[in-house]
Amino acid sequence: MQRVELKDITSGLVGTTVTVCGWVRTSRDSKNVAFVELNDGSELNHTQIVFDKAAFDDKTLSPLLALGAALKVTGTVERGMKEESVEIRATAAELLGASDPSYPLQKKRHTMEYLRTIPHLRVRTNTFNAVFRVRSELSYAIHEYFHKNGYYYVHSPIITGSDCEGAGEVFKVTTVGFDPSVKTEADYNAKDFFGRPAGLTVSGQLEGETMAMALGKIYTFGPTFRAENSNTPRHAAEFWQVEPEVAFCDINDIIEIATDMIKNIIGHLLAECRAELEFFDARFEKGLIDKLRNVVESEFARVDYADAIEILKKSGKQFVYPVEWGLDLQTEHERYLTDEYFKRPVFVVNYPKKIKSFYMKQNPDGKTVAATDLLVPGVGEIIGCSERENDYDKLLAEIQSRGMKLSDYEGYLDLRKYGSVPHSGFGLGLERILMYVTGMSNIRDTIEYPRTKDELR
Amino acid sequence: MQRVELKDITSGLVGTTVTVCGWVRTSRDSKNVAFVELNDGSELNHTQIVFDKAAFDDKTLSPLLALGAALKVTGTVERGMKEESVEIRATAAELLGASDPSYPLQKKRHTMEYLRTIPHLRVRTNTFNAVFRVRSELSYAIHEYFHKNGYYYVHSPIITGSDCEGAGEVFKVTTVGFDPSVKTEADYNAKDFFGRPAGLTVSGQLEGETMAMALGKIYTFGPTFRAENSNTPRHAAEFWQVEPEVAFCDINDIIEIATDMIKNIIGHLLAECRAELEFFDARFEKGLIDKLRNVVESEFARVDYADAIEILKKSGKQFVYPVEWGLDLQTEHERYLTDEYFKRPVFVVNYPKKIKSFYMKQNPDGKTVAATDLLVPGVGEIIGCSERENDYDKLLAEIQSRGMKLSDYEGYLDLRKYGSVPHSGFGLGLERILMYVTGMSNIRDTIEYPRTKDELR
Repeated sequence: MQRVELKDITSGLVGTTVTVCGWVRTSRDSKNVAFVELNDGSELNHTQIVFDKAAFDDKTLSPLLALGAALKVTGTVERGMKEESVEIRATAAELLGASDPSYPLQKKRHTMEYLRTIPHLRVRTNTFNAVFRVRSELSYAIHEYFHKNGYYYVHSPIITGSDCEGAGEVFKVTTVGFDPSVKTEADYNAKDFFGRPAGLTVSGQLEGETMAMALGKIYTFGPTFRAENSNTPRHAAEFWQVEPEVAFCDINDIIEIATDMIKNIIGHLLAECRAELEFFDARFEKGLIDKLRNVVESEFARVDYADAIEILKKSGKQFVYPVEWGLDLQTEHERYLTDEYFKRPVFVVNYPKKIKSFYMKQNPDGKTVAATDLLVPGVGEIIGCSERENDYDKLLAEIQSRGMKLSDYEGYLDLRKYGSVPHSGFGLGLERILMYVTGMSNIRDTIEYPRTKDELR
Repeated sequence: MQRVELKDITSGLVGTTVTVCGWVRTSRDSKNVAFVELNDGSELNHTQIVFDKAAFDDKTLSPLLALGAALKVTGTVERGMKEESVEIRATAAELLGASDPSYPLQKKRHTMEYLRTIPHLRVRTNTFNAVFRVRSELSYAIHEYFHKNGYYYVHSPIITGSDCEGAGEVFKVTTVGFDPSVKTEADYNAKDFFGRPAGLTVSGQLEGETMAMALGKIYTFGPTFRAENSNTPRHAAEFWQVEPEVAFCDINDIIEIATDMIKNIIGHLLAECRAELEFFDARFEKGLIDKLRNVVESEFARVDYADAIEILKKSGKQFVYPVEWGLDLQTEHERYLTDEYFKRPVFVVNYPKKIKSFYMKQNPDGKTVAATDLLVPGVGEIIGCSERENDYDKLLAEIQSRGMKLSDYEGYLDLRKYGSVPHSGFGLGLERILMYVTGMSNIRDTIEYPRTKDELR
């Protein structure tokens, strides 16, 4: 008999006989009947299986009730207790895979910290099942949004040759490693796979710009890396980023695009991940669904960096970090702006040039750049956005004045030498927005196998 | 005036005034008029811009005709010479970005080898523009196929802790690198970010299995790495793989899924990338479109490995590598089977256990495994597929007999201890299938910035 996925067991099948497979999530044993909540991954909710003890003896039944066991069940679809719910009354059952009594996910509440120690099993809990469903659907929504709007998906390189001699934040990629027989750096490089230093990318933007200068509208969506020592709930060494880059597009155009994208992908989740968002709303963040609906429906705020500084100064708040024009905003400042002052997502525009990257377009005032961060309530920055400097001489001067290695940026400078055009782009951290839409407060709980300082399972 | 993308300049707009942007791909100057073929990335074909010399003096016109220059043009849409074609008669033009006379892509045929030396500019040629359009559309087709069929997209980790002490084929990831002050391996690890050896993933399969044991049907789609010294046209150190993993699924089921996926994504390209495939058919591989149509319409062949060996032995061919039961098939053998014998894609099934991986399900004969490779004409293997060993004891014995480090596989073994189920999956190399659908004969020409031995631009 052809197996039916549990998501397809609906009231339309009442009275028919079906075969289903799945894992035991909970079970309950009483005098005349036993119940199993079965899940096969096709939906977040479980399907109740009823075993009549007249038909199944205790010896057969016992392993079928073990938490984590895998079953194949044939039975009749019946109406359940709750409206619209259905259950399956088993007529035959097969134990596909027994679950050893040492199974760690027994009936009790486990801490998120404990669950992080068993990444290969925690996805079997409702919480992580829901997180990874939403992660998948959000990723699809991103691809669908850009595809629908005529963007090309670009795979920028993961192993890069630029930036790899910079600060300690870049991971090195090598085939040598610890080798006491290698005495000089030149010997080390000669022995290495690429014959020169290589590192893991921190961003696909520069290569994305290359592609946008021919394909017009592109986006990257891939892993990026930072060997950050900071052990915070918001930082991971490996994380996925979405980086669109658009030709013939200035800072105002790209702010519109970023706004449209955020509203679209959150709207997609509200439509497609109802059960998951309700679960998070009930268990992790009261009001989550209202918050997301508000993002889709409200205008995003927009404030000049200089005005944001004034707002913070006049807030009457005691911040830990100083508030002064020229200093970067810290999480506490971002949170005040989004959570207390604007109470909705806000673009902070025109940051001081000195605290931002070399590639950002310099404004006519000579001291700020056409850059903006999108801050959202509860999380802070989720998008970093800018128009790119498209003037060869200004870009060259910036690279030189920052003491960067010119030879690493020759191709990038060429883009300003041959048909340069106004262009802009942004970076969206997938895990940051996942935290925002699920209510997870630690980035480690949005990644299958999180990588952070001293943690590699 | 709002800019219109060139793909939207169609015969329906004849007689209207439009503003467009783009880069000069070719130009031609004659007595009374000048012509520019403009491209903005929104389609492969160029749009002809006509400049009347009565309206534009030579000094204005000269930089607008430079190859690679970026223009903004306002003009009237008119019918072109070819049926259905349209062109734009310029009334105003602005030079957005001049192109320096040193622009390498002048009007002459460049070799693929030369173009590889300028990866940041080659995407501006028709060939690479078409390749990266198809790469994008193929990637989207893969996401769409799996999403439509209820699979979850999973981001398996790129930095891994397992396998990283194995053969030299795994790249090491470290924050230490060459450091003559570090005298022992223990000191090296203590100084390193993760405090232990780390490497770049060669496959997301094992972590994919973890997810499939809770989510049912998953796929990964991300970069994988191999520090292969072999300098061939088919190998790169960094390449993207698609790896579906399906619970409650045996080898026959997964062969059906792989077949259905290949037919679907190639059918998608035939429908959506007509201009690009016609370009490749005309310039790179005569008959390409017929070949692809044949894949969509024909039954894939299926042959037992043992029978394939007999076919090769009876072929009368002089192969460089020996043909014998127990030896792996080489490219020359694969090519004979697909190009000459079957003349269509063929699944070779039930390989000898000794030449395949530890995780493959052992057949009852004790000497083969439930594994298959999909070979396609002109390329060879594009999919490696198997049912996974779901018996704890057999898997443990295999790990031990191969001398693998048990502690690296504890989580993986746990999957067979708690609710193990029959499950299968496959790996599809994105660049391999891209070579197949574009006619590119070198993998380096399917990747924006290819990484191979001693090459890192």
